Amino acid sequence: MRTRIDLAYDGTDFKGWARQPGLRTVQETLEDALATVLRVPAVAVTCAGRTDSGVHARGQVIHLELDEQELSASIGRSRLLPMDALHRRLNGILPPDIRVQQVRAAPPGFDARYSASWRRYAYRVTDGAVDPLARHHVLAWPRPLDLAAMNEAADLLLGLRNFAAYCKRREGATTVRTLIDLHWEREPSGLAVLTVRADAFCHNMVRAITGALLAVGDGRRLADWPKQVLDTEQRHPAVTVAPARGLTLEEVGYPDGLELVRQAERARNKRELPDD
Amino acid sequence: MRTRIDLAYDGTDFKGWARQPGLRTVQETLEDALATVLRVPAVAVTCAGRTDSGVHARGQVIHLELDEQELSASIGRSRLLPMDALHRRLNGILPPDIRVQQVRAAPPGFDARYSASWRRYAYRVTDGAVDPLARHHVLAWPRPLDLAAMNEAADLLLGLRNFAAYCKRREGATTVRTLIDLHWEREPSGLAVLTVRADAFCHNMVRAITGALLAVGDGRRLADWPKQVLDTEQRHPAVTVAPARGLTLEEVGYPDGLELVRQAERARNKRELPDD
Repeated sequence: MRTRIDLAYDGTDFKGWARQPGLRTVQETLEDALATVLRVPAVAVTCAGRTDSGVHARGQVIHLELDEQELSASIGRSRLLPMDALHRRLNGILPPDIRVQQVRAAPPGFDARYSASWRRYAYRVTDGAVDPLARHHVLAWPRPLDLAAMNEAADLLLGLRNFAAYCKRREGATTVRTLIDLHWEREPSGLAVLTVRADAFCHNMVRAITGALLAVGDGRRLADWPKQVLDTEQRHPAVTVAPARGLTLEEVGYPDGLELVRQAERARNKRELPDD
Repeated sequence: MRTRIDLAYDGTDFKGWARQPGLRTVQETLEDALATVLRVPAVAVTCAGRTDSGVHARGQVIHLELDEQELSASIGRSRLLPMDALHRRLNGILPPDIRVQQVRAAPPGFDARYSASWRRYAYRVTDGAVDPLARHHVLAWPRPLDLAAMNEAADLLLGLRNFAAYCKRREGATTVRTLIDLHWEREPSGLAVLTVRADAFCHNMVRAITGALLAVGDGRRLADWPKQVLDTEQRHPAVTVAPARGLTLEEVGYPDGLELVRQAERARNKRELPDD
């Protein structure tokens, strides 16, 4: 039975999503918790966005294959439905910096990674007072930010483009992506929040774009600079990758029904090594 | 020169505001930082709300006496005004869980504690999905909360009353307080937030009232129970003090001008040992 789990984590104390020997990662922590609850030697999960070290998530999505009889046996007697019991038990043994938000049966053909039609990230920056209660997921910026200038720069990057200039190159991976949303808003608290949505992202792409926009925002660069960098189609030494702490994977979008399967086929064909 | 400093802190890793030998407290951390920046052996500050262990603040206010010549000498050459230079240097040496928000000259007669006309706290609870990024300042509640019932109960506690039933008794301290605001609101995120505002609070008062309201919210008690407890005018064994983690001192209100001095005189007469 294909199963979907939505989860959130504070990335501060994780070395990112993907398993790495000897390091604390979200994947290993979650897979180990699943194996414990399900009483099996190992569990393998696939996620929608493989977040980097220090990057957070509120809307990470994963899938895994569950054996219904195995699940019932491991859950045992419970007033709850098996999915709800699994949800509760996972949160009972997971550390407080990972929380499972939802566990549900996924439609046939659902693939957390390949079925996704878009990923939405938020990057949070304060250029005023720093709220120590939010310091783990908000970047403090020492100079005032001009959101109008940053949005002017952002508009020029929208659409289907080759983002090679903003990507850490990986062999065999395409850097062509469709950037659907890229805009800054100031919250009533004064916080500046960048919303970034694309079909998919290559490695470092959100944080490299954010870094280029921040250079515009504090007046070091003009509003057309990030587009000029894009047009070089080559990794640009003047672009500073913004720190991981400000970045959160907020939501992953999936199409309905049969379109799930078609989307997965299209994504597999288009990208050899898709990233977060 | 009487000086006012506004500050915020994440109370998680502090044993509260007040100095205690061998423990990490906000007062000691701040006073030590001030002494370092001002190059003096010791500095004594007075705060508006002496928060308990684990309680946070976004709008704590303190005052201290600054010698203008000492300040200029310690700051040395700077492009900034002395107050701004002090602000910046304090944040440069304070740990990231305390941030100075503002440093300014205070009107004559200003007393952070006695001039305050009210203190406003917020208590944050989630009865739905837990956001791991907010886990240090939001309490997770395992049962759904009925905000209408909690607000019905809250309304009955408003006004000038003897809050002995909700206070940790201290010799010589009055428990008569004016509760100005007490209401729950659900934020768009689903978070339940209690706003509590009073002229002053006795020890444990906000968290004891919150605990009584939560018992109403999840159906263990009826809406008139918190008022019945109040009317006993005695510490009630069935009231559970809500955990510190959900509580934040949000704002302290001061009157303008001369009224500052009058307010301080009134407060000194009324309360022998005022608390947070």
